[in-house]
Amino acid sequence: MRTYLDCYPCFLRQALSAARQAGADDAQQHAIMGQALALLQTLLPGKTPPEIGYAVHRIVREHLGHSDPYRDIKVQSTRAALALYPRLKALVAKSADPLEAAVRVSIAGNIIDFAQSTEMPDLWATVTRVLAAPFAADDLAILRAALDAADRVLYLADNAGETVFDRVLIETLTAPVTYVVKGGPTLNDATREDALAAGLETCAAIIDNGSDAPGTILSLCSEDFRQVYAAAPLIIAKGQGNYETLSEAGPRVFCLLQIKCPVIARDLGAPVGGVVVRQSVL
Amino acid sequence: MRTYLDCYPCFLRQALSAARQAGADDAQQHAIMGQALALLQTLLPGKTPPEIGYAVHRIVREHLGHSDPYRDIKVQSTRAALALYPRLKALVAKSADPLEAAVRVSIAGNIIDFAQSTEMPDLWATVTRVLAAPFAADDLAILRAALDAADRVLYLADNAGETVFDRVLIETLTAPVTYVVKGGPTLNDATREDALAAGLETCAAIIDNGSDAPGTILSLCSEDFRQVYAAAPLIIAKGQGNYETLSEAGPRVFCLLQIKCPVIARDLGAPVGGVVVRQSVL
Repeated sequence: MRTYLDCYPCFLRQALSAARQAGADDAQQHAIMGQALALLQTLLPGKTPPEIGYAVHRIVREHLGHSDPYRDIKVQSTRAALALYPRLKALVAKSADPLEAAVRVSIAGNIIDFAQSTEMPDLWATVTRVLAAPFAADDLAILRAALDAADRVLYLADNAGETVFDRVLIETLTAPVTYVVKGGPTLNDATREDALAAGLETCAAIIDNGSDAPGTILSLCSEDFRQVYAAAPLIIAKGQGNYETLSEAGPRVFCLLQIKCPVIARDLGAPVGGVVVRQSVL
Repeated sequence: MRTYLDCYPCFLRQALSAARQAGADDAQQHAIMGQALALLQTLLPGKTPPEIGYAVHRIVREHLGHSDPYRDIKVQSTRAALALYPRLKALVAKSADPLEAAVRVSIAGNIIDFAQSTEMPDLWATVTRVLAAPFAADDLAILRAALDAADRVLYLADNAGETVFDRVLIETLTAPVTYVVKGGPTLNDATREDALAAGLETCAAIIDNGSDAPGTILSLCSEDFRQVYAAAPLIIAKGQGNYETLSEAGPRVFCLLQIKCPVIARDLGAPVGGVVVRQSVL
């Protein structure tokens, strides 16, 4: 997905939020904001939002040298999600359609997102809402058929805590799953440490993509990951960042997300809050 | 009120919204956004939000030459507000405390604000909410005493449509009122034309402040207005823009507004949505 002008205010807000999350004082916040404004002034043509977001967060990192400002909030997110794990499992177990229920649980977990604010959402209320909502984009039948046909699944993680909700979905799948985390910290995106804390090693092989950018920017990923990606018969891509980078990556890719911003809402032709299962186009 | 870094994303959103409201095409939107980013990069120290907002809107005007992009939406706002006028009058008439009811009605009208979005709010729902809400800042008793003592009132208008709600308050006051509109169009702020459309000439003398900036930036106002302002024993200042420019203009000034943004919420120590009657400090 291309970056819209509507994304620019958001990048500024992200810069400020990340700076504060990393403990920036007033002068540092001003300096970071000034550099973010200068970056945006180049109005980088053809870049996806995660590519610009990555550059913004690099500015914060250069100023503050903090490698992982979202560490604490990631630990808290995983803990809060794990507390729900038994209820999520029970909910899927008693469902008439466990796959659909588990897909919805996984999408519910996508509410854990601190790109804009560091307020913890009400997880159970989100589960209830996402379980009951009609799909805003519904390629579930195609995903179901693709899962039946695939001998393995590549699963691109999004955020820490959301990992626990992913685990519930992965545990309903029959094909072996490789779970892909970030190669280094960016925002509250899951790294190997976060996946392990959520127990993903019990149901999937965990690898990292060699990149500390949000979403999946293939040119920034490791050669190892690119080979795994190229060979994968079916890819589940979680969250807005992966949608923004992979929405046109072809029909092997299924994006599972909640719509949390009006720009993606417009891109998808669906409302904010919408529950999305969408096969990527070419 | 000083400008916080949190205001910067908002200025960008305003630039984009105003550009679109004025019919900018894609290239024009990009050019306007680029200039707004350059302006913000100067991180203008000591300026209030309306001063920066004014500069942002001037960029839009220079590009598009459109003198009043919010004309249609202002006309619609006034029409929608006038449709409620009989109910607002009845509501005040049957109140045990007509002044408080009318102050609340006037604050309810402050919901009409298209700085961020051009979506028309639900006016009657807002009236109901604002009538029942506890004040988030409550200098009503001081305002009441000041109104009893004052031989005249200077009333600084905010937006078109809100004018009708102001009229309801002005009609409950016993002292003669001078109603101050903008000297030229800015956002959906009321000009003389908008005040006349709302019937303000039936209850107040209408003057303009000689400026087409949001809020009340005295240095940009006409000498005539500055003299009237300097001599006024009591000033009612409506809306966020006037709060941002006059919150430290001294105890003659009473700001009546709804809190519509987190920055003002923090400045006032009150939540977004809060109903505010606040005497300015020095």
